[in-house]
Parts: sequence; C-alpha cells; structure tokens
Amino acid sequence: MNAIALVGCGNVGTALLELLHEKRSMLDKKYGFKYKVTLVTDLMKGTVMDTNGLDLEQVLGALHNERSFSKLPQSVTGSFSDLLDDSEATMLAEATPTDLKTGEPGLTHIKTALSRGISVTTSNKGPISIAYDELHKLARECGAKLAYEGVVMSGTPLIQMVRNGMAGCDVIKIEGILNGTTNFILTKMHNSNATYAEALEEATSLGYAEADPSGDVEGFDAAVKVSILARIFFDKNIPVSDVDRAGITHVTPEKINDAKNNGYVVKLIAGIEKGAFGVHAYVKPKEIPSSHPLASICGATNAVTITTDNLGEVTLIGPGAGRRETGQALLSDLISMAR
Amino acid sequence: MNAIALVGCGNVGTALLELLHEKRSMLDKKYGFKYKVTLVTDLMKGTVMDTNGLDLEQVLGALHNERSFSKLPQSVTGSFSDLLDDSEATMLAEATPTDLKTGEPGLTHIKTALSRGISVTTSNKGPISIAYDELHKLARECGAKLAYEGVVMSGTPLIQMVRNGMAGCDVIKIEGILNGTTNFILTKMHNSNATYAEALEEATSLGYAEADPSGDVEGFDAAVKVSILARIFFDKNIPVSDVDRAGITHVTPEKINDAKNNGYVVKLIAGIEKGAFGVHAYVKPKEIPSSHPLASICGATNAVTITTDNLGEVTLIGPGAGRRETGQALLSDLISMAR
Repeated sequence: MNAIALVGCGNVGTALLELLHEKRSMLDKKYGFKYKVTLVTDLMKGTVMDTNGLDLEQVLGALHNERSFSKLPQSVTGSFSDLLDDSEATMLAEATPTDLKTGEPGLTHIKTALSRGISVTTSNKGPISIAYDELHKLARECGAKLAYEGVVMSGTPLIQMVRNGMAGCDVIKIEGILNGTTNFILTKMHNSNATYAEALEEATSLGYAEADPSGDVEGFDAAVKVSILARIFFDKNIPVSDVDRAGITHVTPEKINDAKNNGYVVKLIAGIEKGAFGVHAYVKPKEIPSSHPLASICGATNAVTITTDNLGEVTLIGPGAGRRETGQALLSDLISMAR
Repeated sequence: MNAIALVGCGNVGTALLELLHEKRSMLDKKYGFKYKVTLVTDLMKGTVMDTNGLDLEQVLGALHNERSFSKLPQSVTGSFSDLLDDSEATMLAEATPTDLKTGEPGLTHIKTALSRGISVTTSNKGPISIAYDELHKLARECGAKLAYEGVVMSGTPLIQMVRNGMAGCDVIKIEGILNGTTNFILTKMHNSNATYAEALEEATSLGYAEADPSGDVEGFDAAVKVSILARIFFDKNIPVSDVDRAGITHVTPEKINDAKNNGYVVKLIAGIEKGAFGVHAYVKPKEIPSSHPLASICGATNAVTITTDNLGEVTLIGPGAGRRETGQALLSDLISMAR
C-alpha cells in the first residue's frame, strides 16, 4: 500500500486529491495502484494527518469551502520533516507555488523527502530548474525516485514519452510552443489582425495573462522550460540566463501579415538544437510553415516537435496548464513510481 | 545480461539488429540496457546461434549482402522451439511477415516464447489482432512480458504514451490517421486537385501503395489497427469485421474541393468512441476542420488525437511505417521489458 503525502493545496494539489478520491477503484483495477493519503499540509490551510489514510471527502470538503484544516479531528502541527516522519509516507507530491529564484519552499520539501528515501513527484519548476543534478544525486543515493512530468506541458506526457516511449533514440532537436499565454496572444493577432496591446488586453481579461505579464511575454517562462528540457533530453546544463531569449512584445501585425501572405505563421518557439558548436537553446518568435503541425497550435495549447535519429519528427500536442491537467501529471508520476 | 532472440530478418528485423549493433554503448550508459543477441533465425536466410552472443557485424554483413547464414560458423538448424531453448534467450523480437487471417508464423513463435517465460516484443499485427487476450493470459501465467508498440504507428510511441504517460486518464475518444498510403493519396488530391486514380498511380510509383492497394484504400489496414486500439485502450473486443468501415475509393475531387472551400480537409479517419450504446469503432473519410492538428498531417505521416477526462485532447504525430522506425518500436519495447 502506497502512503502519499501532499504538500501544497492550491489548485494543483486540490486537483490531485480530487483525482485520488474519484478514481480509487479504477486506479486499483487498471494499474494495481493502491494507496492511502496520510498527510496533507498547506501553509494557509494547516495540516491533517492519519497514518491509516485520511478521509479525502472530508479534506476536500474543507478545501472546497475554503475552511482551515484546524477544525478537522486529524489536524496536527509540527515541522515538515517531523510531519513527514510521523505520516509514514512512502511518496510525496510537492505542489507548492513556484519560486524560480530560490526554489523554496519546494526545494526543501523535496530534499527532506528524498533524504528519507521517500519518492517525490512535483509540478514545481523552481526546484527542478535550480537543483536538477543535486536532487537526482540525492534520489540515487537514498534509493528514492524523482519525477516531474508536470513542470513542462502539465499532464501532457512529454517527459515520459521521450524517456520511455522513445528509449533508444538520440534526440537531435526539439522545437515547441511551451507558453500558452504568448500563443494565445499570437493566435489572436494572426486570426483577427489585432495589435499586440489589444491581444494582450484580451488575454488578461480572460485570465490567460497575469497582471504583470512579463514572465510570459518576454519569453522567460519558456526559457526556464527550455533549460529544464536541455538538462533532461540533451544532458546539458544550460542556465536560464544562457538561453538565447526574445519575447513577443515587438511582434507587429505587419510582421504577422507578411508571414501569413508567404504561407507562414509566427509562433514563439522554444528550441534546443545540437550543432557543430554544442547545444543551442533559444526562445524567439519564428515563422513556421503553415503546413507544419506547430503552425496549427491555437490558443493556450502547447506542442513540441522532437527530432530524433530513429524516428525523424514526432510531435506531441496537448494542454500546457490547468488544475486538473497538472494534477494528472502528479497522478501519472505517482502510478509510475509505484511500479 | 539480456539474451535476445530475433525471428524474421526482413526490413524490420534487420533494422533492429543495426540499432542493437550501433547503439550498444549508448543503450548501456543511458538505460543500463546490456544485451547479447544469441539467436537470429529467418525462413529464407537460415539460423545462427551463439549463447555467448553473436557477432552482429558478421550477421549484418550476411544480411546486407543477401547471403544465407549457412556459411557462417554459428549456423545451426532445428525447430524453432529447440532453437529457442538452446539459445538461452530471455527475450524474443518477433518480426516475421504479417498474416492477418491466421497470425502465423508469428502467433506460434510468440506462444512458444511466452510459454517458456521468455518476454516478447512484436511489430506483427496478425497475432496481436487475432489473439490479444490469449497471448496476454499466457504471458501472465508464465511470468513473461508482451509488448507490441510497433503494431500501430511504427516507433511513434502511442501505446506506451497512453498506457504509462497518461496513466490515470479515462480514454473517451480516439481519432486518427493510421494509414499512410491513403493519407498520401488524399493529400495529393487536396494539394493538386488530382483524381483518386491519378493520386493512386503516383502512390504506387513511389512505393507507398502496393500492387493490390485494396488493403489500404478500402480501409482494411486502418480497421485492423482500430480493432487493436479498441482492445488496448477501451478494453473492448471489436473484431475487424465489426468495424464500421469505408475506404477512399469513392472520394472525388469535387468532395475535396467542397470541403476545402468550407475550411475543411478530407481525411481517412480511424476512430473509436464511447457513447450511450457502447463503443463505436469506424474507419471512414471525414471532413476535419482545417484548424485541427489532424488536418495538417501530410503524406505518409500518422497521427492520433486521444480525448480523455483529465487532459482533454492530446495529439501525437509521427511516422507510421519505415524499417528503422519499426525497428525502433522493437528496441524501445526491449529496453522497457528489461527494466
């Protein structure tokens, strides 16, 4: 029986609990995945623990009604490391908010778990971007597993697909659309001739863009993902600051129209390529031939084309964000780590 | 150390041997996959066996020069079951020609191996289509693994992706382009206004279509794949004869032009869908909105859109055939079975 601890009950953590609650019998029947959730802890909501397995309906009731855990009978307090020990967890799902500068608090949570031999899945880009090698080393030394499907393309299984499904291939090039906000804006500009400012305004009003959109529109979010993918698929440490990066703020309706008239679509492309001078990682607006699958990617959808020696081009298209979609990433990691 | 036996040295089997020969150090370093090939047997070429591991350069030399194995020092003769026993193989790669009616000789090869506890990978649609349940049951009973990534979309890892990468999702619908020949013909008709007969002629002259193209153009090949995918992803036995099937022989330039003028592209779609009255499996020409990724699939490329509860639509695009591409399917199965 797998004993799961969850830290972080925002949208993604809550979605994971919902999936674990809804799908218990299906997960057992189809994957032989049996589990109890023994610890749920959140900076705002508090902590509940039960080594026999928490009542997920009760925990979800508190979360859906925005009530603190303090009124629940299983409410406890303590340091994260003590809670983890007491919970007898065998797996941790880490879903705290991302801090790209320090990786905290996720980084400490992950190290605390791995050092106890507890396997970890996370959808938190911060720790994976900052401490990929250190965390993998710690996992190896402590006999734990570390998975992070959700850091790129949410539950769209890019990492599992390339690592396992395409095992034996040498990856030569990756090109993709890894930021939904900028793709939404460029799609809007392409389809309705809007200016960048107009399209950004719509993206903001629909909740696709944040109040300060610079992380997306300057290509920084995509650059973090490219840096992580370079480490995973090319075995190269390319810090985010070394990613050749340009955003979409200077893309004009004229540029988009010119491309359109020549049979191209402008996309913010995140790429990694092996060349004569090493591995080049970049994020920049590129003209994609309208016959290429990447040109057909509309709105907030993500997509990646992986070029390998054995298969040529393989393209994977799917959601790049979303609470249930990212909860699914954690879930598939948990199932795979239990095997 | 994994000991691999290969039966069938046509294009796919030879490509697998090439990959195993080329990539030995990479496969060890990256996946910890250590192996020797102890048996290679082919109806036309003969058989070579060495329990210490065959010299693959020598075996490939004979294959590339279309020489029989009989002059090689490791040449042996015997029944397949005796050879398999003597070879001390732990894994079998089955790559004999497909017979969709009997599944033979692949079916017997696979049963012989599984019943000895030897894990099997195959790219041969016949046995998987005919005896899916029987072979899985045998594998379970004998503690062997059975994998068949290559039966659909060659090495494009559809099966591994949905089974592992999307573990936890309920598949609601699958729609795809699973036959390269018909997609080549329809692409030609769409792009150059050719008639069906003209496009078929070009497909034949380029080697995409066989002398008797009926298996492809009548939708039979796609129907076999749909039947297999229904078993894998929907847990439903839908015999090929129960697949609602229409081919492309009646698709006219007028139909394609009408669709084009309305923003659609005609594709031969292989689909499976859960509905109120059970699972419906079909192969038929359908109009796909030109903004959908499936509309962008040109030539012999394959693609599948998988709709699930947790992720919405995920689309996978990649090669659907090819010697190295299908050899890659066998290779990734071998690596995964060794884990």
